[in-house]
Amino acid sequence: MEERTVKSKLIHRGKILTLRVDEVILPNGKRATREIVEHPGAVAAVPLLVDGKVILVRQFRKPVEEVIYEIPAGRLEPKEDPRRCMERELEEEIGYRARKLKKLLSYYPSPGFSAEIIHIFLATDLDKREQKLEKDEFLEPVTLEFEEALRMIEDGRIKDSKTIIGLLLTENLSSG
Amino acid sequence: MEERTVKSKLIHRGKILTLRVDEVILPNGKRATREIVEHPGAVAAVPLLVDGKVILVRQFRKPVEEVIYEIPAGRLEPKEDPRRCMERELEEEIGYRARKLKKLLSYYPSPGFSAEIIHIFLATDLDKREQKLEKDEFLEPVTLEFEEALRMIEDGRIKDSKTIIGLLLTENLSSG
Repeated sequence: MEERTVKSKLIHRGKILTLRVDEVILPNGKRATREIVEHPGAVAAVPLLVDGKVILVRQFRKPVEEVIYEIPAGRLEPKEDPRRCMERELEEEIGYRARKLKKLLSYYPSPGFSAEIIHIFLATDLDKREQKLEKDEFLEPVTLEFEEALRMIEDGRIKDSKTIIGLLLTENLSSG
Repeated sequence: MEERTVKSKLIHRGKILTLRVDEVILPNGKRATREIVEHPGAVAAVPLLVDGKVILVRQFRKPVEEVIYEIPAGRLEPKEDPRRCMERELEEEIGYRARKLKKLLSYYPSPGFSAEIIHIFLATDLDKREQKLEKDEFLEPVTLEFEEALRMIEDGRIKDSKTIIGLLLTENLSSG
């Protein structure tokens, strides 16, 4: 089933993503083009407080022109360790230090055109610190009952893949 | 929190995606750039047989250079009805006609840089037809016990967002 690359053309090297177009040989010997977004990968975590509440962040996302709910997350720097990155993002975005980060899984949000991989953690044993957003970063933490967050998936108020996957896996862990 | 667009530059108009770079005004009045992948959206469905088995497809995905497991899915044509598109894709990819398509949810795989939205269905009351792949499409249907598919999420063999979300939601429906 593999597709061998015979030509690769860089279209755009940007701040957060790179677009290239590959020419490939299909299993039947024919040629086809593949548009591919390169991405450094990302981390995300479900921050679960001792009282069972979960902390999400509200953030405007230009591609969808909407303020949406997400779990705290961040883009990896090249070669950065996912756990270190996640610890930093939790402090920056919601002002908590996680003493425990349990890896839930790694997944491809959109493998048809994007190489992005997202590593999801469950963050517990949270110690309150100060939120310290990067300059030009605008987001608002929201603390919710876990059951309410699950209802928000059902009724469509939560639409982000990492948030849906992180919350559903956390529910499965606690119920089984 | 909104970001107002002051300039938009088309970088690439491709077969399956378009890349543009927007210049925006942040809530603090400063300017920033946003790299945005435009995408027509997609549909996906969890095909559940009467014996409780589920049908996945194995497919090579160039961006991640891997043969991965996915639920049947397809890209929407402009203005196409998601249900019609899903019915067609189920016949093409796995050779089944679904008499029942229940909408599970719509989600954003990667709203930080991509406008793509994926609509997920549960497909039941399946009638066997002939698989009729489009030319130059290479994928292999695999029928699995539902519990085995869930284990494949846990142990990392299933990594695709629509597949993880579709299977976990289907599990939730059947368990309560």
